[in-house]
Amino acid sequence: MTRRFHYERLEHFCAELFIRAGVPQEEAEMVAQSLVQADLRGVDSHGVVRADIYMRRLEAGMVRTGGQLDYMEDGAIRILDGSNHFGAVVGNRAMDLAIEASQANGVGVVGVRGSNHFGTCAYYLLKGVQQDKIMLILSNASQTMPPTGGIRPFIGTNPLSIGVPAGKHLPFILDMATSVVARGKIISAAQRGESIPQGWAIDKAGNPTTDAQAALEGSVLPLGGAKGYAISMFIDILCGVLTGAGFGKYVNNMYENWDDPQNVGHFFIAFDIPRFMPIDQFQSRMDLYIDELKAEPTAPGVSEILIPGELEHRCTVTRMREGIVLPDKVEYELRTWGERYALDLSDALLEE
Amino acid sequence: MTRRFHYERLEHFCAELFIRAGVPQEEAEMVAQSLVQADLRGVDSHGVVRADIYMRRLEAGMVRTGGQLDYMEDGAIRILDGSNHFGAVVGNRAMDLAIEASQANGVGVVGVRGSNHFGTCAYYLLKGVQQDKIMLILSNASQTMPPTGGIRPFIGTNPLSIGVPAGKHLPFILDMATSVVARGKIISAAQRGESIPQGWAIDKAGNPTTDAQAALEGSVLPLGGAKGYAISMFIDILCGVLTGAGFGKYVNNMYENWDDPQNVGHFFIAFDIPRFMPIDQFQSRMDLYIDELKAEPTAPGVSEILIPGELEHRCTVTRMREGIVLPDKVEYELRTWGERYALDLSDALLEE
Repeated sequence: MTRRFHYERLEHFCAELFIRAGVPQEEAEMVAQSLVQADLRGVDSHGVVRADIYMRRLEAGMVRTGGQLDYMEDGAIRILDGSNHFGAVVGNRAMDLAIEASQANGVGVVGVRGSNHFGTCAYYLLKGVQQDKIMLILSNASQTMPPTGGIRPFIGTNPLSIGVPAGKHLPFILDMATSVVARGKIISAAQRGESIPQGWAIDKAGNPTTDAQAALEGSVLPLGGAKGYAISMFIDILCGVLTGAGFGKYVNNMYENWDDPQNVGHFFIAFDIPRFMPIDQFQSRMDLYIDELKAEPTAPGVSEILIPGELEHRCTVTRMREGIVLPDKVEYELRTWGERYALDLSDALLEE
Repeated sequence: MTRRFHYERLEHFCAELFIRAGVPQEEAEMVAQSLVQADLRGVDSHGVVRADIYMRRLEAGMVRTGGQLDYMEDGAIRILDGSNHFGAVVGNRAMDLAIEASQANGVGVVGVRGSNHFGTCAYYLLKGVQQDKIMLILSNASQTMPPTGGIRPFIGTNPLSIGVPAGKHLPFILDMATSVVARGKIISAAQRGESIPQGWAIDKAGNPTTDAQAALEGSVLPLGGAKGYAISMFIDILCGVLTGAGFGKYVNNMYENWDDPQNVGHFFIAFDIPRFMPIDQFQSRMDLYIDELKAEPTAPGVSEILIPGELEHRCTVTRMREGIVLPDKVEYELRTWGERYALDLSDALLEE
């Protein structure tokens, strides 16, 4: 029988785990919230599957906890030093600063260095749109994709994300990697012994491949060829080169490097809508736009036109009600961590 | 024998043409400069090929000239009303405002409404990087692409552009449409009777097609499927919904609508690098990044790793020296306009 976990209990379990491992309560709750929200939205790759590596890095002393984060302020710009804290802690602080700066200046820009893997961008976007901000959030990541014409990973699948509030409609929430597909899809294909479509990946010699295993030994490709490479590079420039964080090979892989901080960089921009037009007018215009999009005729086999973030919202509603199913491996990891810190993962199960 | 035009003389010819048709000198020179610079960079689709439609709209009274452009100022935000002036005139004003606002606040954001087709984004980016700014410039455009799952054009191929100065290296200049390919490539394939790759376009019923003619009657597709649709939509939101300009079907097509102003919207962001780190430190970091990218091993058949904007720079150097070759149709149009305003296009030829 499939075990289903209740999102609030699962979040509580993860937070308690972090607390018992020494993380201050407020920080532990942010990290747990960012993970479980990803599971709710169906972005399982960024959900509690990451709790294991977060705990391992914490225990290995690779992540700092507690204390204040320093920042510099100049006009509408803030530069935040994450000081190697958990990414979700740094990201939440960056969000607060971006919103505060946008209140004062109409736009708030926060460049972040010294951070770690911070989960999904959508986690922060959703906080911003609730405060009637338009948010643009970028992050760099360790090397996974080659530049166009290259054969080795050099840039990350650096995410591009935007959140925009609407009126009666759901907010527009775009949170996309700059790769053609998530590497997870190639892993799944390899496990099933299936081939992958042309254009997803190259083998380690740089040749296009449809062999999933060869692709895993090679590199996943950027979205749309040279365009995706360029977008990923500019994200690395804003998040890394400009903020003082790592960029390219100087962003360390959290699974492989146990000597150095990750030094991930992020870039947060918040726009204060009322500086442009009254918020209700903006909301009406968004609603009109979405209404008109959804009224468009659809292609054969397509039932409706979707707005970015809509599927993830539906998934959230379903999983809040029906619970979250974890892969066996993830459940085993969490259970094992729980035993180590006198927590029972079964307490997080959904009551049937 | 192929006729080759000298870029400065061609620019002078176009500026004179606009001046004689009633455009104030300063405005005429901006429009001419933006067109010829596109030809120099190899972006022929946005070069003097557009002089004809600009002149036709000017003579039809569809574009306003002369006078000041109004804007509102609040913190780091400027909202500029283009008042239906030529896009290049509005774009140049938006650039100046963005740079000025970034000097004062670290970041400058200019939302623009009431504009027209403004040429390439790269034209403005290059001005920004010369002043040590990182520029992000977006524009919406009239309907050419369906939303994912749709069959009719609803969003434009809304360009995303970024300019970043480097030190010893050329600046990073990305100026990309959010479509898979330029529609011009499909037109060329149709003229040659060739098929197009799967994934470029759909026919008018919404089915994928490799028939170039059917594609022209249908729609060009967004870059990377749903990701390109989402990027194009957020550009429309920032440029149109937020600024008060048109969005979706409310951005009028300059070739088809002779009743209403285009009401194009743009969005300019300038970042003042020294607020983040000393400019020479930033330039060194950019140079290191580019050096490391260019040192990457290349795939079979690839001679070098390129940085966005590098090919266009090389094209500029070549065309400055060897001249610009115009398609017969474009040369005929310019010659005809010249005769009407007592200008001889032959005066713009390169001296051999």
